[in-house]
Amino acid sequence: MRDLLGSEAQAFTGVLGKARETAALYGYQEVITPVVESLELLSAKSGEEIRQRMFIFKDLGERSVALRPEFTASIARLVSTTMKNDPKPLRLFSVGSVYRYDEPQRGRYREFWQANYELMGSTRPEADAEIILLTNSFLGSLGLRSYEFKLGHVGVLRGILNQENVEETTQNAILQHMDKKEYAEAFKLAPSDKCRTMLEGLLKLQRDNCFETVEKVKQYVSGYEKAEAAAANLCDILTLLTGSGCPVRMVDPVFARGLEYYTGMIFEVYIPQLEVALGGGGRYDRLIELFGGEPTPAVGVAEGIDRIALALQEQKAAVLSKPARRVLVLAVNESLKVEALKIAHLLRSSEVVVEFEVMGRKMTKALEDADKRKIDYAIIIGDRELKEGAVMLKNLAKRDQAIVKVKQLIEKIKN
Amino acid sequence: MRDLLGSEAQAFTGVLGKARETAALYGYQEVITPVVESLELLSAKSGEEIRQRMFIFKDLGERSVALRPEFTASIARLVSTTMKNDPKPLRLFSVGSVYRYDEPQRGRYREFWQANYELMGSTRPEADAEIILLTNSFLGSLGLRSYEFKLGHVGVLRGILNQENVEETTQNAILQHMDKKEYAEAFKLAPSDKCRTMLEGLLKLQRDNCFETVEKVKQYVSGYEKAEAAAANLCDILTLLTGSGCPVRMVDPVFARGLEYYTGMIFEVYIPQLEVALGGGGRYDRLIELFGGEPTPAVGVAEGIDRIALALQEQKAAVLSKPARRVLVLAVNESLKVEALKIAHLLRSSEVVVEFEVMGRKMTKALEDADKRKIDYAIIIGDRELKEGAVMLKNLAKRDQAIVKVKQLIEKIKN
Repeated sequence: MRDLLGSEAQAFTGVLGKARETAALYGYQEVITPVVESLELLSAKSGEEIRQRMFIFKDLGERSVALRPEFTASIARLVSTTMKNDPKPLRLFSVGSVYRYDEPQRGRYREFWQANYELMGSTRPEADAEIILLTNSFLGSLGLRSYEFKLGHVGVLRGILNQENVEETTQNAILQHMDKKEYAEAFKLAPSDKCRTMLEGLLKLQRDNCFETVEKVKQYVSGYEKAEAAAANLCDILTLLTGSGCPVRMVDPVFARGLEYYTGMIFEVYIPQLEVALGGGGRYDRLIELFGGEPTPAVGVAEGIDRIALALQEQKAAVLSKPARRVLVLAVNESLKVEALKIAHLLRSSEVVVEFEVMGRKMTKALEDADKRKIDYAIIIGDRELKEGAVMLKNLAKRDQAIVKVKQLIEKIKN
Repeated sequence: MRDLLGSEAQAFTGVLGKARETAALYGYQEVITPVVESLELLSAKSGEEIRQRMFIFKDLGERSVALRPEFTASIARLVSTTMKNDPKPLRLFSVGSVYRYDEPQRGRYREFWQANYELMGSTRPEADAEIILLTNSFLGSLGLRSYEFKLGHVGVLRGILNQENVEETTQNAILQHMDKKEYAEAFKLAPSDKCRTMLEGLLKLQRDNCFETVEKVKQYVSGYEKAEAAAANLCDILTLLTGSGCPVRMVDPVFARGLEYYTGMIFEVYIPQLEVALGGGGRYDRLIELFGGEPTPAVGVAEGIDRIALALQEQKAAVLSKPARRVLVLAVNESLKVEALKIAHLLRSSEVVVEFEVMGRKMTKALEDADKRKIDYAIIIGDRELKEGAVMLKNLAKRDQAIVKVKQLIEKIKN
């Protein structure tokens, strides 16, 4: 775990702000769920991989709890309980820290932040497309360049494995290996030669042009009804995405993700400068049911805030907001402190960033320090000027100064 | 722990936003520290009360860790390590969830949110005043009414107890009891009659007018040098506050707070409608040293976000931001989906909140539903209109509709 300071923290909160803006623009309402949830809930359908990396403990009431490793289980809990009667489609946004006991590496931390968008109630390709297009808008609005999406469909693999009567636990293990690109290990788990050959063939399918790849997959799985339908579904989603100008780089026929609950389209988004995905998600049509809710189709995405902030840094992307002008307010003597505080308050009420001199330093020392810290203006409150309703305004960069009426101060500073 | 949904979540994020704005206006830079910290750090100087209510566990590396019960220990760690060479004054802001195993009650939760402001490096009363004035600005900017500050000074009690040679652990216990208004229990711990009589007398001092109270305290503790200095210091702070129009309601001579690390002025802020404080803080001049840093005077405040959101609700305070106009975009047939997505994107690029029809419903059904959900406009993409570069714009509230050129859409919706 780590601290974020200075410009790093600024970039971080800038990304958080844009995530919230994106949610608003797409009609996603924010929900806030606890960081600590019951272990049972969190481990229900997250996958062995993540289960082993949770921060688990007993609370003072001896209940087994854990720090959330992701948001989707908490959202599924909400949608199957408190929000179960809310009309569909339901668009939910949440943002905050999540926890996994990983080996720390570049872009990977034990405490990291996600912005999470879930669209509940629709089985249709436009729902899948919306989640990806929203990610596209979000990353674009940050000024990120040359990011690209990778798409897949869990239904293709599951369709083959189901028809080949592979048990669910074995299916999960195969997908876990594929997620880590341990293809040889995945193939070894195939219970029959036919099944193994099918999987091996899928891996070899060409992946240059997205539409061609989907077409090839469709033909290749012909006879596996559900896998065929999955490929057709992926083709529909792809049409909506590319028509909207979304940069889809590749369709990967053997793409799998760490979480077990996916049932349909899955995706991740990358930039060339980073090995880890900036965000990823997919469709999970059975999770709400699993938590005791009505069967509810759903699709969602988790955007990795830490990694996106890192990506912005890598690309030296435009600063998120230009720094505001900074002003130091100081009084020439003790008896003027209250007047100085009032002027500071007046300026802040007009959105001027004001630091108040609190160190009791001599004027020269305080100004030297302000200069070092690149403060733009110093406002000096003195008896003589104040009698005329004025103060001394020093432009520290230009090294000039003028007596300015308090009433005109805001205008002078802002222009 | 609890979930926050709908308008409750909206109020909550609104308060968070204002907290961040206030930090910017006062020149406080944001830092982000982990939710999980070492137990040793968190329990070093927080007080027995809080130690017993922490969520403690061992991580997978068998280290004793806990969920932070407050921010100040983490900030003190930063200031005594990574940021130790940063010039003073150092103004730091942090916001996030903190954890205490309390009995849940109105305005009190096991997971709650704080906005935390710390001003490091100054011993002067204007630093104390800044922290309180900042709280005043923050609450005022939210539209909160009739909130009032209660002030005290740990230095008065400690000054007496030190001079009466009361051991530190006993002092802490006495202050803990006073914090809970268990005065009889507190007095019992006094090691001498003289000490007990002093404390009892302090409790009885009049508290109607703030300045009069401070004056009385000053006279009462005459001979207890440090207590006298503390009362004088409180008087200076009070002068700066009342001169700035800050609503200080009361000075409490036996005021104490749960945290052991306070050394000077302490305060809390209340509204009449709630028994719990909305925020509170004070001066802690020895904490940074305790964490191995240079001796660094400091003063800070923790604003209780949950309670402030509750207070706004209690006072039916003006909605924080007026709701944006909402638009539903839908295509009359499958082949127009891509065009519809493009128009949705165009609108969002101009800050219009757009929901896209993802349920595959018939037009009438989708419009009925939009009406129920109080969507303002529906934009219907049809072949005929699109050929003319236009769409159908339905004002759902006014129940009228018009064919509008795509280029004029944004203007029409915004006006």
